[in-house]
Amino acid sequence: MSKKGLIAEILCTGEELLLGDIVNTNAAFLSAELTELGFSVYHHSVVGDDPKRLKESVSEALLRSDIVVISGGLGPTKDDLTKETVAELFGRRMAMHEESLEAIRAYFAKTGRVMSKNNEKQAMMPDGAIVFPNHFGTAPALALESDGGKAAIMLPGPPSELIPLFHEQVVPFLKSKNQFAIASKNLHFFGIGESALAEKLDGYLIDTPELCAATYCKEGEVRIRITARAENEESARLVLEEYANKIIETEAGDFLYGIDVHTIENAVVMALHEKKLTLSAAESLTGGLIAKRVTDISGCSDVFLGGCVTYTNEIKHKLIGVSEETLELFGAVSKETACEMARGVRLATGSDIGVSATGIAGPTGGTFETPVGTVFIGISTKNGETYRKLSLSQMRSREYIRQASATNAFDMILKAIRSM
Amino acid sequence: MSKKGLIAEILCTGEELLLGDIVNTNAAFLSAELTELGFSVYHHSVVGDDPKRLKESVSEALLRSDIVVISGGLGPTKDDLTKETVAELFGRRMAMHEESLEAIRAYFAKTGRVMSKNNEKQAMMPDGAIVFPNHFGTAPALALESDGGKAAIMLPGPPSELIPLFHEQVVPFLKSKNQFAIASKNLHFFGIGESALAEKLDGYLIDTPELCAATYCKEGEVRIRITARAENEESARLVLEEYANKIIETEAGDFLYGIDVHTIENAVVMALHEKKLTLSAAESLTGGLIAKRVTDISGCSDVFLGGCVTYTNEIKHKLIGVSEETLELFGAVSKETACEMARGVRLATGSDIGVSATGIAGPTGGTFETPVGTVFIGISTKNGETYRKLSLSQMRSREYIRQASATNAFDMILKAIRSM
Repeated sequence: MSKKGLIAEILCTGEELLLGDIVNTNAAFLSAELTELGFSVYHHSVVGDDPKRLKESVSEALLRSDIVVISGGLGPTKDDLTKETVAELFGRRMAMHEESLEAIRAYFAKTGRVMSKNNEKQAMMPDGAIVFPNHFGTAPALALESDGGKAAIMLPGPPSELIPLFHEQVVPFLKSKNQFAIASKNLHFFGIGESALAEKLDGYLIDTPELCAATYCKEGEVRIRITARAENEESARLVLEEYANKIIETEAGDFLYGIDVHTIENAVVMALHEKKLTLSAAESLTGGLIAKRVTDISGCSDVFLGGCVTYTNEIKHKLIGVSEETLELFGAVSKETACEMARGVRLATGSDIGVSATGIAGPTGGTFETPVGTVFIGISTKNGETYRKLSLSQMRSREYIRQASATNAFDMILKAIRSM
Repeated sequence: MSKKGLIAEILCTGEELLLGDIVNTNAAFLSAELTELGFSVYHHSVVGDDPKRLKESVSEALLRSDIVVISGGLGPTKDDLTKETVAELFGRRMAMHEESLEAIRAYFAKTGRVMSKNNEKQAMMPDGAIVFPNHFGTAPALALESDGGKAAIMLPGPPSELIPLFHEQVVPFLKSKNQFAIASKNLHFFGIGESALAEKLDGYLIDTPELCAATYCKEGEVRIRITARAENEESARLVLEEYANKIIETEAGDFLYGIDVHTIENAVVMALHEKKLTLSAAESLTGGLIAKRVTDISGCSDVFLGGCVTYTNEIKHKLIGVSEETLELFGAVSKETACEMARGVRLATGSDIGVSATGIAGPTGGTFETPVGTVFIGISTKNGETYRKLSLSQMRSREYIRQASATNAFDMILKAIRSM
């Protein structure tokens, strides 16, 4: 075992991945979770349904890592070979696992579907397997441990099964493997670049096995993940808390918008709930993205009333009463239009806060005066209107410009909520 | 070389991938492109900045594959080691590549940024490298070929550079490697399940080296990718065309909504353009997702006027005039409300077609009569209103239910356009 803790690696199986038909979100999920739990992850790999290549990959992974987490290949078809292949490597025989068979039968009964003979295969387990029942699908997950202290954990491929099953059953199993307790926190910053933030935190960004900080950035946001390792959870938390406070007390703290909030839109929805305020949005260049990101969050309906996507000047006028004079005089991409849009949608919906976004997402539509990446965000409350002008790089993609505009809108909403 | 053509594999480098901080979209992109070009992809892998592990992984990849495509590690910092590591494996020395140095200088001048001394490292190239200039960033891409016919292609990590650079320069290079010409087409179907479609195509789904078909499904859509391989491009196209027509002429053809349209929203925007019609959307459970997916497409503003996100009953009434009686009598999740929403947004915006979506996205909010997954899609044109009721599985995620609702909406819009 290295000083940094156990080494885990991730092996995903599936032809769809190799054909590029789906993006490997399982690998990202598992990597983040394993890191959070204090494991070091040095390798991801993907192989298809081929038994020879699968066997080679698992065997290689077990040579260089303590734990290999495998996703996929637990289905009912003859192409699903993960259990059989790993059992062979561990020298175990397959046998019917009666409890799993019962659970699969019960699952089919509950969902009103007919169980086929094939599904019985999903209840076959290698001798000595630790079985993790699947309450979200038919394939139970499992772990095999070798005498040498290596472990293979096998999970179903669909994220809708893998994710809850991992949280429910694999996390406790993995925690029991770890000699140390790990605690971590995410500090979320906006309005400052990664290197400027690092400068403000000069001397505070530690990287030791006991305590470390790492910065990540995404569309204008910066996140610092801090992790503490100690003998037990309480000590780890204590050390972590103290370190987080030190960081927050620096000048960097001025740019902190939340701790462990997952996303900035989550922070917005929480803050609206807390202050019992409501929001609406008028969107031009973001075309529904602000509303989409807010409504990704279950339970947003108490605080998000709705809004308008006003892609043309006429609609800006018709739906939310932006004056034709403003549009004529200043143009659709202007602070005046942004403010009128925000005000218009606030009044039309009766919300406490109205937000708006208007600009040029590109790749076409830019002019010399208003190049691609020019965006105005407007905010309206009963105290009046404010705006922010963004000049994002013309080199950025349409997707980036739209996402960064929405993220800026969320930052402005948070500031508005705090001032109310 | 195998009968199926050359074997390619993908190796992505980056600590952010191993920490689960970003999803490996490069692997999916490269896999899809390589498959499209006729290469067989059997492995993906990810390693970090560690030179030893990187070297092992590249060397392993070159043993089992003809071509390894590597992304990342071409940056200006000392952690960026891809070129140096691969050069060592190929026994090549690094030297300054003057043309690249000029190009990097020009790039900085153009974008008005200051070039640091570090960036000169990006112009260092192994002896005998084929250099692919990067017009989208600072790091040039490159390929190294061994006497034994193996090749390593190295690309910058950011997708905004990797994707256009790949299309512009790597595709021609890869085509020159291939002994055969490959042509392929995607047939897009909606309203039929994968297995039902396969049944209707019994005997038509071929899998030979010369001609093959593969089906993929995603949120209710099914796509069949057909690929033909021949001596030259013209023959490949001819064979492909003939095969596509055979498939379309079966009963499956009734469910075809487009050929090579990329996404169903692309098909919608193209069809609207073609018939010079305009669209607007009133969204409840999809919360802006329909508008967001349409406005992802550059140039949609000629045909998409905008719409409303009406998350509460009051807003449904206020913004698009759904009658209070309808909401009272039938509820927000009903065919009556869906139709009034579609009509309301069409009249409010003056569009030719109005579409609406109302339902329960979950995970909470379901009742016995209206469980999670119940969705009504409404369509309004000058010819009147129609609707579709969806009963999606309660087991599905909020994300799935919202995406599938939007996809159904797009299918109904396509049908409405065709009838106008």
